[in-house]
Amino acid sequence: MEALNTLKVIDIGIDTYHEPVVYMRSDCHICRSEGFTANSRVAVDYGENQIVATINVVDEKVFEPGNAGLSKIAMQRLGVAEGASISVSHAPVVTSLAAVRKKIFGHKLNDEEVTEIVQDISDHRYSDIEIASFLSVCAGSRLDVDEIIALTQAMVACGKRLSWPDSPMVLDKHCIGGLPGNRTTPLVVAIVSTAGLTIPKTSSRAITSPAGTADTMEALTTVNLSLADIQRVVAETHGCLAWGGAVNLSPADDLLIRIERALDLDGEGQLIASVLSKKIAAGSTHAVIDIPVGPTAKVRSQKEAERLTSLFTQVGAACGIQIRCLITDGSQPVGRGVGPVEEARDVLAVLQGGNDAPEDLRERALFLAAHLFSLAFQERYEQGLERAKDILDSGAAWTQFQRILTAQGGIKSLPSADFQHTETATSTGTLQAIDNRQLARLAKLAGAPNVAAAGLRLHKRVGDKVERGEPLFTLLSDTEGELQYALAYYRQANIFTIGVVS
Amino acid sequence: MEALNTLKVIDIGIDTYHEPVVYMRSDCHICRSEGFTANSRVAVDYGENQIVATINVVDEKVFEPGNAGLSKIAMQRLGVAEGASISVSHAPVVTSLAAVRKKIFGHKLNDEEVTEIVQDISDHRYSDIEIASFLSVCAGSRLDVDEIIALTQAMVACGKRLSWPDSPMVLDKHCIGGLPGNRTTPLVVAIVSTAGLTIPKTSSRAITSPAGTADTMEALTTVNLSLADIQRVVAETHGCLAWGGAVNLSPADDLLIRIERALDLDGEGQLIASVLSKKIAAGSTHAVIDIPVGPTAKVRSQKEAERLTSLFTQVGAACGIQIRCLITDGSQPVGRGVGPVEEARDVLAVLQGGNDAPEDLRERALFLAAHLFSLAFQERYEQGLERAKDILDSGAAWTQFQRILTAQGGIKSLPSADFQHTETATSTGTLQAIDNRQLARLAKLAGAPNVAAAGLRLHKRVGDKVERGEPLFTLLSDTEGELQYALAYYRQANIFTIGVVS
Repeated sequence: MEALNTLKVIDIGIDTYHEPVVYMRSDCHICRSEGFTANSRVAVDYGENQIVATINVVDEKVFEPGNAGLSKIAMQRLGVAEGASISVSHAPVVTSLAAVRKKIFGHKLNDEEVTEIVQDISDHRYSDIEIASFLSVCAGSRLDVDEIIALTQAMVACGKRLSWPDSPMVLDKHCIGGLPGNRTTPLVVAIVSTAGLTIPKTSSRAITSPAGTADTMEALTTVNLSLADIQRVVAETHGCLAWGGAVNLSPADDLLIRIERALDLDGEGQLIASVLSKKIAAGSTHAVIDIPVGPTAKVRSQKEAERLTSLFTQVGAACGIQIRCLITDGSQPVGRGVGPVEEARDVLAVLQGGNDAPEDLRERALFLAAHLFSLAFQERYEQGLERAKDILDSGAAWTQFQRILTAQGGIKSLPSADFQHTETATSTGTLQAIDNRQLARLAKLAGAPNVAAAGLRLHKRVGDKVERGEPLFTLLSDTEGELQYALAYYRQANIFTIGVVS
Repeated sequence: MEALNTLKVIDIGIDTYHEPVVYMRSDCHICRSEGFTANSRVAVDYGENQIVATINVVDEKVFEPGNAGLSKIAMQRLGVAEGASISVSHAPVVTSLAAVRKKIFGHKLNDEEVTEIVQDISDHRYSDIEIASFLSVCAGSRLDVDEIIALTQAMVACGKRLSWPDSPMVLDKHCIGGLPGNRTTPLVVAIVSTAGLTIPKTSSRAITSPAGTADTMEALTTVNLSLADIQRVVAETHGCLAWGGAVNLSPADDLLIRIERALDLDGEGQLIASVLSKKIAAGSTHAVIDIPVGPTAKVRSQKEAERLTSLFTQVGAACGIQIRCLITDGSQPVGRGVGPVEEARDVLAVLQGGNDAPEDLRERALFLAAHLFSLAFQERYEQGLERAKDILDSGAAWTQFQRILTAQGGIKSLPSADFQHTETATSTGTLQAIDNRQLARLAKLAGAPNVAAAGLRLHKRVGDKVERGEPLFTLLSDTEGELQYALAYYRQANIFTIGVVS
């Protein structure tokens, strides 16, 4: 029976993102005898490797009988080339789906059940709709502390884990996000590592924002570091600013986040497990979590921030990492630049102490660094703040930042955008509010983060007086088309609220 | 800007089932300027028509720049042919997803929210993962009676609706399912319509079972009837036995069921709305619902059956349809045949009153018909049963059945399977149990329902004495390969439990 199930691989040239697809002819003997139809889930075997894939049925014109097409991710995960022989059979039963159904029916999951679910997701046994089902019934505060702890530990267990035998204390920071700009991480790493503390920071690229820390750092240096590179850079400088994606710290989380974003779901349990699993896998012992609160930030109320603080602290304690949550002002962007290169300019300005350095970004970075010092040296916040200011104002942090960049592969000069347009205020008054979400969308329409130099630069902050005709922001883009497209969006959006002087 | 978004259609020959896919080159100017990547959701416009589709990115080798491939369902829903010009832009925001999030967070939905969700699903605005999310948070008894009523009415509102101005009373029946065989519908329709009552029955094809009523009826006559055909047949005979899929009675439900099956979710609210919306859309005023209860049936406990009964009755009353639920024995198959043709043989045997007619199928059909008579004529069940028996035993139902088949397009003769194998008992004793689910799977592996003549015929029922070497069942298939494959499954399954005589 086995030989009957063999087909030759065709590289069909289609990128189906994370979900592997196998393309089979409707008259294929395997489809007929196994009863496979469009959307059936099947096991595809090549030598020792097996993946679970979804069938798309194709016309006779697409390829000859005896062949099967594979999407890019399917070929990659099987490690197969065109012409190789694969076999296709019924997908194995995924037993952990019984636990998902248990959760659907409102029951609490135990550690073993959570572990089995995360392991199966990490092994790519779940289809996208199965992941969506699991995430939906866990969102909305439906995971209790025990379940979040189990989820965090299961995520750590299925990925790589860094260890720092020479550093009894390893620091980290995280921001819950939702504010454009706010690129504090490079500053915090430079300040904290100058003091000799270990802070091997791995960051993500933008998922829905105009820039992630990894995107901003990539405008300045190499971020695609291997595990060995990270260890070398940290040995030399105590810090690093690398992209986390290359080191596979929490592969299950990467698969979950993709569906969470598509569903626009922010399940708190999932969020906490996602953040802490990556911190624990990175070997961190102490971390500060920045939780900006504002009407257009990710966290919108003080109450919600306090609930997150409580959960983060409890889960962290259970998993052996000390967490300090800091609830901050999330009413407007932090810094002037939005987009990889523009945010890098703000970071450099703060490090170099120039007159154009955005004061709010400087203060936010000092605040976070001071709390890390307070944790690390068991000192009062005020002492930590003095320490951080001294390091920044003396130029030591700037020197240290250059050392880290050099160790990572050198310092790049920042590119400029080919097209720019400055938009002015149409009325006089006081700038009362900036919509974080719409501003982020504006920067993305201009091309950020795919085009590093694209984005925008703010000329006013909330509270500033604005005269009619004064510049509000400058939009930066690589093409005239994108610039116009973004401006068309700006004109129908409502990003800046200017209160008229009475 | 508009003209820039235009691409020429390529029929790429891929069947992606219900989810439309647009295939775009990674270097396509639209992908670049709009920031589309693999899995982005986009709007595709052709003239007045618009669909929402998912992007799969393709290599340069697949087609030339300036083109976009469309999957079959995408071409069909846009009504477009190869070479036509389409435009691709950002998918519109689906506002009802806010209501889905409200449900995720455990809040009750009001009528407007449910209506908006169902309308958007019916308009194909939801991706598969969004439907999965909605279904998951509604399953597990998370919809209350008000929400189920709203869901039922919303499903009716977005489909076609039949009306029977000449019939103040329109009857219907439904079985919750889970038992192989149990093909009572053709018998009930024949008996009830003989009495002059209107019963315009539309049925589904098999989704996960070895045969649906529409599959069995298709072995006997034409079932793919238009609305006009159904009205003509009912005008002539008071009854019909048509496939419901051609008349689009509940398009939202068809989209939901597909994902429900893939997730193996049986949300009770969804089940009730699905069944009742189709009854109401078909114009029914009175219906009986058969709820078989057994350890391997769909409903496994008396308590669950009673809860369903209560919900069905309440929701029916609110939607203006009188429902009588009947809790029946679901411990084993009903009838001897499993698979479209074999079940048709049982139906004909009962109608013709032959010696080989399965008594259990005859009794189940008389029971259901008697309850419909009791509802329609407001008479006691015993009176209804006498009436039903008279009609069946006199041969009137058989005459009526032939009239319906003739009106639908003629009577087909039943085909025979090319390969068969009779399996015998390996021990002597009493047949104590038959596993419904595994038996259904055995029939499907033999080729049912795609191959109408495939399936099996049982030679023993629960309670029968079995001698070692006596026939248990005959397996029927169109290919030797499928027959062997099914037998290999049978040998590792545990379908028949024979209690040894002590």
